[in-house]
Amino acid sequence: MGLRQISIIGVGLLGGSLGLAVKRRQLAGAVVGIGHRESTLRTASARGAIDRFTLDVAEGVRGADLVVLATPVGLFGPLLEQAAPALAEGCLVTDVGSTKRAVLEAVLPRIPKGCNFVGAHPLAGSEARGIDAARADLYDEALVFVVPTERSDEAAVKALERFWRDVGARVRRIDAETHDRLLAESSHLPHLVAAALMNALSVDAEQAIGRGFLDTTRVASGDPAMWRDILLTNRDQVLRALAQLEAGLGAAKSALEKAQAEAIGEFLEQAKSRRDRLRGA
Amino acid sequence: MGLRQISIIGVGLLGGSLGLAVKRRQLAGAVVGIGHRESTLRTASARGAIDRFTLDVAEGVRGADLVVLATPVGLFGPLLEQAAPALAEGCLVTDVGSTKRAVLEAVLPRIPKGCNFVGAHPLAGSEARGIDAARADLYDEALVFVVPTERSDEAAVKALERFWRDVGARVRRIDAETHDRLLAESSHLPHLVAAALMNALSVDAEQAIGRGFLDTTRVASGDPAMWRDILLTNRDQVLRALAQLEAGLGAAKSALEKAQAEAIGEFLEQAKSRRDRLRGA
Repeated sequence: MGLRQISIIGVGLLGGSLGLAVKRRQLAGAVVGIGHRESTLRTASARGAIDRFTLDVAEGVRGADLVVLATPVGLFGPLLEQAAPALAEGCLVTDVGSTKRAVLEAVLPRIPKGCNFVGAHPLAGSEARGIDAARADLYDEALVFVVPTERSDEAAVKALERFWRDVGARVRRIDAETHDRLLAESSHLPHLVAAALMNALSVDAEQAIGRGFLDTTRVASGDPAMWRDILLTNRDQVLRALAQLEAGLGAAKSALEKAQAEAIGEFLEQAKSRRDRLRGA
Repeated sequence: MGLRQISIIGVGLLGGSLGLAVKRRQLAGAVVGIGHRESTLRTASARGAIDRFTLDVAEGVRGADLVVLATPVGLFGPLLEQAAPALAEGCLVTDVGSTKRAVLEAVLPRIPKGCNFVGAHPLAGSEARGIDAARADLYDEALVFVVPTERSDEAAVKALERFWRDVGARVRRIDAETHDRLLAESSHLPHLVAAALMNALSVDAEQAIGRGFLDTTRVASGDPAMWRDILLTNRDQVLRALAQLEAGLGAAKSALEKAQAEAIGEFLEQAKSRRDRLRGA
């Protein structure tokens, strides 16, 4: 890609790991970190994730070929307001947010003429967060959804795909609507359900948890503010996925009420057979 | 405890691991394996989990101080029918089943006079199963619920507690009713929900799963026949726990429908704070 400068707004787990990967693979002349907490930026710099940093968004994006939004999704609009006047002609803006329709809505109107926006979503987060959890190999073999818009220049989409491949990830192109539908089922609903399972546990049942419960509820340790934004910006699809789940749970409930061993067995067989197939995924 | 002979009926993950631990810690003069598949018993023998084996239940329990039921719960009744005439005076019978009220119902009427039954449930299973997954350290630091009945001799209860401590586990005494209520919340309902999440996933959403989905649904790979029995033998408590979960999910759903950011945030905060506290558990 021959990037002169990449500017990363937000150097937490995702932004920091991207900086580390870019530096390790020497994909850009300079990596600039932008944030609102100097201590985080200092740590990112000390860890070698960025070459320099600033608290000033406009200053930070100036001269960048690639600007990556890696803060919580809810901040993208205001941040771009600040960044827009300083974006270089031909600059490619992208993000790493977990929902896509709301991102496009917030971001697209603020992209200046002569610049491009192409969304992205690497499936590489975890319940860990912050620059301390950042790793140079976070994106190795990870799947990154690349999300063009109707206004996206094909060359810009291809450039972003190449960038993520250079970082070590696998890339799949998808539209925002489909992305949000799939992720509601594979990530957003499971998070909501894990949180509900955790909240429904009686205090005295905490003594009876094993590895199974810890696995099933692990994601509930994720950042509540980030997940609140994800659930709210994708709520129609999350509600649709929840309705699907409720239908399945309702059928299982009815089978249990009637002690229908065969139906319960089939329900569990189906789940096991699908889960086993995913194992290597 | 000075055991002359321990007979383990069913040498899969739990029974096989118990044999390995007993042998490693030299807790019994002889470990006898009983099963219905000679190949499994041969493997258990080759792995050093048992000293000898037989397909004949009565023959296998003869002379044992301790008999451990480690098959699926649904087989306990018929197996004890076969074992009862051969049980030695003073023999202690126990189990490693995941539900307790149904076990007592099936087992207690079949325990001959002069013998004792005390239930047990080690929280040490996993989605793995079979003798190949057995490990000598499966029970190290694991929690084992010891479940006396009204007819249990206190000396027998103490002996079983000592046995599990000698195996390396932590022991907690609990009644069958409480056990089944706690496990419904901490294990049986999470299993049902993980299976429902797996079944509700559209096929095209499989491309969008990440580590979170894999964690949340891991238990759904467990043995369907075993889990069907667990859910059915504890269905009143599982249904009660499910109703609690539905109430929580319903509240979250309503908050999502109304886009109530604060309520969603609190729901997620509560789950995170409880989940983080469990981390070391």
